[in-house]
Amino acid sequence: METLHVHLGARSYDICNEPGLLDRCGALAAPLLRGKRCFVVTDSNVAPLYGQRVLDSLRDAGLEPRLLTVPAGEASKSPAMLAELWEQLAAGGVTRADSIVALGGGVVGDLAGFAAATMLRGIDYVQVPTTLLAQVDSSVGGKVAVDLEAGKNLAGAFYQPRLVLMDAEVLNTLPDRVFSDGMAEVIKYGCIQNADLFARLERLGSRAAVMAEITDITTACCDLKRQLVEQDERDTGLRMLLNFGHTLGHVYEKAYHYERYTHGEAVAAGMVAAARLGCRLGYTEDGVEARIAALLAAFGLPTEISVTRADCEATMRLDKKALDGDIRFIFLRQLGCAEAVRLPLDTLLAQL
Amino acid sequence: METLHVHLGARSYDICNEPGLLDRCGALAAPLLRGKRCFVVTDSNVAPLYGQRVLDSLRDAGLEPRLLTVPAGEASKSPAMLAELWEQLAAGGVTRADSIVALGGGVVGDLAGFAAATMLRGIDYVQVPTTLLAQVDSSVGGKVAVDLEAGKNLAGAFYQPRLVLMDAEVLNTLPDRVFSDGMAEVIKYGCIQNADLFARLERLGSRAAVMAEITDITTACCDLKRQLVEQDERDTGLRMLLNFGHTLGHVYEKAYHYERYTHGEAVAAGMVAAARLGCRLGYTEDGVEARIAALLAAFGLPTEISVTRADCEATMRLDKKALDGDIRFIFLRQLGCAEAVRLPLDTLLAQL
Repeated sequence: METLHVHLGARSYDICNEPGLLDRCGALAAPLLRGKRCFVVTDSNVAPLYGQRVLDSLRDAGLEPRLLTVPAGEASKSPAMLAELWEQLAAGGVTRADSIVALGGGVVGDLAGFAAATMLRGIDYVQVPTTLLAQVDSSVGGKVAVDLEAGKNLAGAFYQPRLVLMDAEVLNTLPDRVFSDGMAEVIKYGCIQNADLFARLERLGSRAAVMAEITDITTACCDLKRQLVEQDERDTGLRMLLNFGHTLGHVYEKAYHYERYTHGEAVAAGMVAAARLGCRLGYTEDGVEARIAALLAAFGLPTEISVTRADCEATMRLDKKALDGDIRFIFLRQLGCAEAVRLPLDTLLAQL
Repeated sequence: METLHVHLGARSYDICNEPGLLDRCGALAAPLLRGKRCFVVTDSNVAPLYGQRVLDSLRDAGLEPRLLTVPAGEASKSPAMLAELWEQLAAGGVTRADSIVALGGGVVGDLAGFAAATMLRGIDYVQVPTTLLAQVDSSVGGKVAVDLEAGKNLAGAFYQPRLVLMDAEVLNTLPDRVFSDGMAEVIKYGCIQNADLFARLERLGSRAAVMAEITDITTACCDLKRQLVEQDERDTGLRMLLNFGHTLGHVYEKAYHYERYTHGEAVAAGMVAAARLGCRLGYTEDGVEARIAALLAAFGLPTEISVTRADCEATMRLDKKALDGDIRFIFLRQLGCAEAVRLPLDTLLAQL
């Protein structure tokens, strides 16, 4: 089993990564949890595939699990669904010693994590991410949130899980498009921090080839994220580098009402645009944009998405990295090396 | 100006207490806030009375304040109103550097504080409590929350304000019943920690007499709360003592759908019942119940509220101090000395 330890003082936790781990989640989680009651929050796609195995494993470890299923899809990451989850946890008799297991992709992890952060002002939770995107990104680092009408992830908390359990076998049931969704974030880690990982992904070039080395790759991604989170838990500095491709990615997602493009697809096109912008503004080496675009295309990801300037402006003013008319934007110096640059929002908009 | 400093490391803050302070809130708050934008959240009762003065003061200090008004009343402390506030903040272009000023009673403080805790995963906020209850209780200590169908304050956070500004003059416009609501908590501080304060309140015996010494009294209450909060920010130990009278108080409030009794009225009857129970179970000195009941009655507070055993059981199982069939209940040893006792919920229910 690959194990990473995220060092955050009293909020430290392990990330365990091993094929087949789903059947051991009870044994691994139980020693960390105080109360017996444990609410497994999942969605309507994941419940029939993996719900029973997780319930069995938790029950075998002496816990008293209960399944709470939300409809699959981004629409569940809403204030209304959060309120419904709060009521269900309350109706289920949750106490401060009880816990939540978030079994699913980013929507479930963010929603259930935010519910854990706020239920009775905070109860323990365990992340069991079942998509590639959630395994390499949203399940690690404690950022939890719901979407608002005005934008994605605008209401939330920093709230670390007690444990993250990753099982690569569950990725086999992902549709290609959902796998690619996660590959965009995997490629992002190569872009911002690890040129070797980037070159390795160029060499592999397909889902099948990546899956042959998947536990190693997802562990490498989590390790990169771990380092940034340890240095900047509250996302005021270094951690912003993880937002490479995301400022424009959020614009694209929002402009198409979160319907046409997945998060990864939007971030993919956002990374290409950020590389192009960086080149124009003198931050980024020539040739970076082309290599990123080629790698993304190999995994079926889009390299360009059209939006209006008004779309850009409206979403970017609300960006969490905006500050008094400026924005902190992430540029690559070269592959494997990113940098946050504060510049006037208008300067950026003029280049788009 | 009376100033208390709440020592909580990076989350430390001052409580400033002085008649007329409302007109200085901008000057006191501005140096602590990073961004210029500042959302004053208030309710439909407080807005016409004090909204303009606070806006003027903030504007004079160079901030850009904006007023967000919610309907007065406990019903606003809901997940739906929280979501509406999130949307209004987002529509107002809130950034991580901006802040919230919570101008109002406990409902506004809890709701706006929870919005601050979660908007963009946390922005700064300042408490400007305008009821006696909020001045001595909810505005200090960082407990913020909304109510659920299943019970009060069940979803929330621990999130400290940057500053608490208290102005006793605003208490003059409170109806008697709302003043008494706060007196229940003032009396509670006497019960759990300060027999001298209790005796002083017995001597004063009326709203007018209390108002002649009010800044001193509210500062004393905040100082008692400060000590408990500093030792137990997350409410896992000593801070529970503040819940004296609250376990049953919550039962009473809920049994009458938060309509018939104010929080203070419910806590008042809860304190009398807790003293009686403590006496029966051998924790509490004889005579304590009678003195508490007499003092509460002097301030127009009820000393008894009828509920069914089923009401008690349903609410107490969900109490945040419940743990695997037990409950931590706060008993007085004597006036000025409280203690948390863990006992089976059934033992307690049998005595009611």
